[in-house]
This record gives sequence, structure tokens and C-alpha cells, in this order.
Amino acid sequence: MHDPRLDKLARLLVDYSLAPEEGHNVVVSGGVAATPLIKSVYARLLQVGAVPFTQVALPGMQELYFKNARDEHYETTPKLTRRVYEEADGFVSIMAPTNTRALAGVDPAKQQAVGKRDRELSDLVLSRDRWILTLFPTEALAQESDMSLDDYAEFAFEAMALNRDDPVAFWKAKSEEQEKLKERLEEADEIRIVGPRTELTLSVAGRTFINSAGRHNMPCGEVFTGPVEDSANGHVFFDVPAAAGGRDVSGVFLRFENGRVVEASAEKGQDYLQAMLDADAGARYLGELGIGTNYGIPRATRSILFDEKLGGTVHLAVGRSYETTGGKNESSVHWDLITDLRQGGEIYADGELIQRDGRFVGFDIGNDASGEAGAA
Amino acid sequence: MHDPRLDKLARLLVDYSLAPEEGHNVVVSGGVAATPLIKSVYARLLQVGAVPFTQVALPGMQELYFKNARDEHYETTPKLTRRVYEEADGFVSIMAPTNTRALAGVDPAKQQAVGKRDRELSDLVLSRDRWILTLFPTEALAQESDMSLDDYAEFAFEAMALNRDDPVAFWKAKSEEQEKLKERLEEADEIRIVGPRTELTLSVAGRTFINSAGRHNMPCGEVFTGPVEDSANGHVFFDVPAAAGGRDVSGVFLRFENGRVVEASAEKGQDYLQAMLDADAGARYLGELGIGTNYGIPRATRSILFDEKLGGTVHLAVGRSYETTGGKNESSVHWDLITDLRQGGEIYADGELIQRDGRFVGFDIGNDASGEAGAA
Repeated sequence: MHDPRLDKLARLLVDYSLAPEEGHNVVVSGGVAATPLIKSVYARLLQVGAVPFTQVALPGMQELYFKNARDEHYETTPKLTRRVYEEADGFVSIMAPTNTRALAGVDPAKQQAVGKRDRELSDLVLSRDRWILTLFPTEALAQESDMSLDDYAEFAFEAMALNRDDPVAFWKAKSEEQEKLKERLEEADEIRIVGPRTELTLSVAGRTFINSAGRHNMPCGEVFTGPVEDSANGHVFFDVPAAAGGRDVSGVFLRFENGRVVEASAEKGQDYLQAMLDADAGARYLGELGIGTNYGIPRATRSILFDEKLGGTVHLAVGRSYETTGGKNESSVHWDLITDLRQGGEIYADGELIQRDGRFVGFDIGNDASGEAGAA
Repeated sequence: MHDPRLDKLARLLVDYSLAPEEGHNVVVSGGVAATPLIKSVYARLLQVGAVPFTQVALPGMQELYFKNARDEHYETTPKLTRRVYEEADGFVSIMAPTNTRALAGVDPAKQQAVGKRDRELSDLVLSRDRWILTLFPTEALAQESDMSLDDYAEFAFEAMALNRDDPVAFWKAKSEEQEKLKERLEEADEIRIVGPRTELTLSVAGRTFINSAGRHNMPCGEVFTGPVEDSANGHVFFDVPAAAGGRDVSGVFLRFENGRVVEASAEKGQDYLQAMLDADAGARYLGELGIGTNYGIPRATRSILFDEKLGGTVHLAVGRSYETTGGKNESSVHWDLITDLRQGGEIYADGELIQRDGRFVGFDIGNDASGEAGAA
């Protein structure tokens, strides 16, 4: 009736990722399909003395919103939502879509308007150290990934290391391995990425790389920074398909000159790509360079939470950068695009090879027997 | 796929019961089983320019709370919940239990503790003119009523007048009829209730009767007041069974002396009855006298929202009175108990017969051809 890995996941999210103090008010938000995990997290928060506040989303509500909202609704963030975010000490957000394409028919301008309107909410979340985003397996996510629900749940739980005896120990070990990579990358001024239809250089001089190992995303496994805004030069082909804003976007090709996207095309989703790049001035500049380090994820599944962590891939986000990286790009957009280097590609730091064909060179990440650093 | 009466109900709740101004922040709370109605209400609120904020309850969460909450959780109302209540302009609350007996195993002291703790929340709701409580048909409610879900939905929608062309017109007409009853009752000093094992007098001198016709409960149909606290004398047998706090309580008999319960027994649920009466000093005094006026409800179904409205019944609540009635009784308890006068009983106001065997004398309520005043 109840997969014991859900309680493992709840403890990982609450005890390790969030680590609330007694009396902390924690928002637990998720789709109703995530009910079993919401309940496990809720119980665990009570057990450790935190005060949970649930926000359960019903299927179809977003479509209903875009269909019925009036102009003034797009102008102001709902007051009660703002209050909750202002007063919360922590956030557990659980994606559990019942239809990954539910928003395919919505005007992207409306979606962007809500994004801009609620920018203060994401700022409030980011300003707390205590926030964690995860995903609960649903039929819709399985369908998007061409899997049965059972197979998809195995895929998701393996990526979160929940099949291991002690997932917390795993993520701590992962963090230690990634720390070495972070230190090496922070010594570098220039990163060069080479791959099929890809030849890009960008500067990370003076920027901070974030070692991301389970405190804010689950699954996790990446190091990322905000590149110097005017530094990107060259071109890149993102061969990992995305389901962005409820629609297919794939085969995106971008060419950069002095940081700015000067040429953009997509095999699918060209209109959406153009709408995103035209959202505001910052949407044509990079806000993030990330390197996936999770070798427990075997393949891409059109879910950014998983795909950007995939060991052997690199992702670049157009739009907003995260302040903690030292990145300065401002935008209402933050859209990650992913390129897979496993079938032929290299990453160089100041000319030194860091990764070839998706495997790190000189780091233990992804090179142990189980395909994972710090494996049990 | 979608019962058009739900949209009728949404318009009744939003346009008539709540009547929010543009920009009003309205909390829509309900069990996930009420999804179709929550969505209809949400859409209607957007259409009229209000700002909805949903609070969806998942099955099993209350049990989980009582199982996992620590002592300190019972001391303070969760801060985020309090903020939402403080800042809201209106409330639509939709009961939709998936198991009416889910709390049968919970210590009544814990339930009372939460009631006491959250007293400020109910005060906040009552302090707004804009709040409406309704119910969405579920299998659990149908089961509790010995009906199929389809039959139960018909029962519920008929009680709400949703089978009529214009439910708003119905409830307005109902309100006009009830106004005459209210005026007559407010002229009286003493109300006397006679029935099987029942012979009770109480004073309503100087108190206000509330004409309740769809602004705060749906279904509705009652007039009620807070009797003078030390005035109840005699005894009363409540032959309508209740499902209170998740358990069966039936055959309650109370004897009053100068307002105070001095003898109490129940055929079922004796322990719960005693726990309620012992909750605090005010729990042994009456907070409400109500007279049901909804003749669209044919029988009791162990749901207080419906049963207390049943035309031909009278209800008395032990515990807290509502300020608007002029009632002064204070308690953390407010528990309605119902007696059915349709098989033999009378209500007198200062000695004048007001109702016999469940039918009003001298008022049009329940006496028209369709069994309802103001019928279409």
C-alpha cells in the first residue's frame, strides 16, 4: 500500500535538505497526485517540531486560471499567497503533473506575465536557505518519458538514491566529490564546450560555482555558475528535447556574440523559443552554466529537474542568473537548455580537459563501479 | 462529465452568498473530493474580479495530524493559517469528507484542544460578513445516509434548490417568508417546546433571531437565536442521530435547571457527550435555539449542515452562542443537537402555537403546493 522509499524520501527532504528548526513554518506544496509524499513530508515535519502548511494544487486549475483571469489578475500577486511566502521559513515543493501538456494552448505572453508578476515570490523562496524542489512519479511524467508508471518510479527513485541504505550519506559523499570540481572550475577564467554542432567559450572569471547536492533539488547532482554576461561566443546545439511551458521544444540552436543570442532556431517550438528570447532584454543573455553529475540518471525524460542533472550533459540557461553565483543578468525568464556530450564532446577549463564524452577526467564523479561517486 | 448544477451552485455561492467586491481575497477551502465544485467556484470568483486562494485538504491528513503532532502543536494556531484568515475578505468552505468516521479513534481531548486553539480563526471568519459553508456529495456522505452517491447528490441539490430555474430567487423568497417568523419570535419572551420525552421552556427575551437563508450555509433554511443563558428548564430528547467528531452519538437526553445541563445520557456515544459537556464551564449551557425551515430536506442524514435545517425540527446547541444573536454564552464547544417534531410536537411562543407536528401555524413556510415557500 505504501512504498517505504517515500518515508526515506520524506526524511531526506526534511532532515537533510530542509533541516528546519523547531517552530519553523514550512509550506508543503504539490499536486494532488503527490498525496502519498505530501502526507509523508507533513508527518515528518510534525515529528521534528516544524509547523507544516499545505498548498495542494488540483488538476486543471492553471488552465482554468488562464481561461478566466481578468487583466487585473495579471498585475498583482494574490495577497494571501504573498503573505504565506513572506512569513514562511521554508518550502517543500513537489511537482506531480497529471498532464505535462495541459498548458500547450495557453498564450505564452500570459504565462510570462504570471512569471513576471510572481518574481517576488521566487525571490522570497531563494532568499531562504530552506527550500527544496522535488518530483513525485505520475502517469503523465511516465507517459512523457515513454515508460510505465512502475518503471518511471524506479527511474525517479534510483536518481534520488532512494534504493540505497542511507540516501543522506550518499548525498553527503556526492557533495564532497563535487567540492573538488567546484574548486577546479573556480580557478578557471574560460570554459570551452565542444560537441556536435557546438563550439562555445564563455568566461566564469570571478564567479562562484554552486555545489548542488540535494539541498535544493531532489534528485540533484550538478555544479553551476552564472557566466560573465557579455562573454559567450560561438554556437551551441541543445540536443536534449524539452517540454517547456507545456509544449515540445527540441533541436534548439543558438549563436552568441559577446554574450548575446544573435541567431536562434528550433526544430520544434520555434514560436515559443522566440517568445522567450523576446520577453525582455536579459532573456538573450546567459544566466547559468551547469554541469550534470548524476550518473544514476541513464537518460533524458523531458523533465528539467532530472535532465539538467544527467551525468555527461551540460546546460545553459537564458535569462536570469542566481545572485549566489555572482551572476548579474536580470530577466523574467530562466530557461535551461541541455546538450548531451556523452556521444562525443569535451569540456575545457582554461584549455585543460575536464570531461570527455560525458566522463570526468581527474575527478572521481561517475567513475566508480556503480557508476556513482560515493556509492554504498 | 460536468453536472450543470455545479455552475448554478457556484453562482449561488459567489454571486448571492458571498457577493465579493472586485479585488476581494477569498479563501476557497475544501476536501479534494470537492474538486469539481472548487473549480467552478474558483472560475466564478475570477470572473467577478475576486482573487481566489485555494486550501485543498487531502484525505487522511487530520488523522495524520493527531497521530504526529507534538504538545506544542496544540498550543498555537499555525502562523501561516492565521495570516491567511487575518487577511482574507471572504471564505467559501466546502465539506467533502471521504470518510465520516476517520476521527473515531482520536482522543476527544485532542479534538477539543484544536478547537480551543483555533477559536481565533472561527472568530475571524464570523467577523467577516462574507463566509459561506456548503457540502459536496461524496460516497462517504452517501454511505452515512444509506444512499447511493447519485441519490445522495439528488438529495443534496434538491435541498439547495438547484433543481429550480433560479435558486437565487428561491432563497430571496425564502428569506422574506422567514422574516415574518423572525419578527413574531422576537416579540416573544418565552419559547416552549413539547414533544416525545420533551418539555422545555427557555427565554429569548431581548434576543435577536437570525433569518438564515443562504448567506452563510448552503443548504440553508432556519431561524435561530441565543437563548437567555440561565433560562432553560425542563428536558429534551434529541431523536435525530448525529455523527459528531467522527463517531455515532444518538438518543441524547438532557435535563436543564436554570440553564444548566444537570442530567445527560446518550444511547450511543455517552463518553463523547460527557467529554463535550465537561470541556469548560460554558459547555453545559445553551448557545443556540434554532428552528429548521427547509422542507426540501425529507429526512435526517447525520450531517448537521442539513439536519438542523430540516423543516419540522428544532435544534439546540450546547456551548458557545453567536454574538449577533445577543447570546452571551462562552465556550470552546458549539454542538447542535436535533429533535424531530414531525411525528408529534409543538412549539409555542408566549403560549401561542407556532408549529404543530412539524408544520408552521400562521406562516407560509413549508405550506405551499411544492412543500416550499416561494417555490418556482
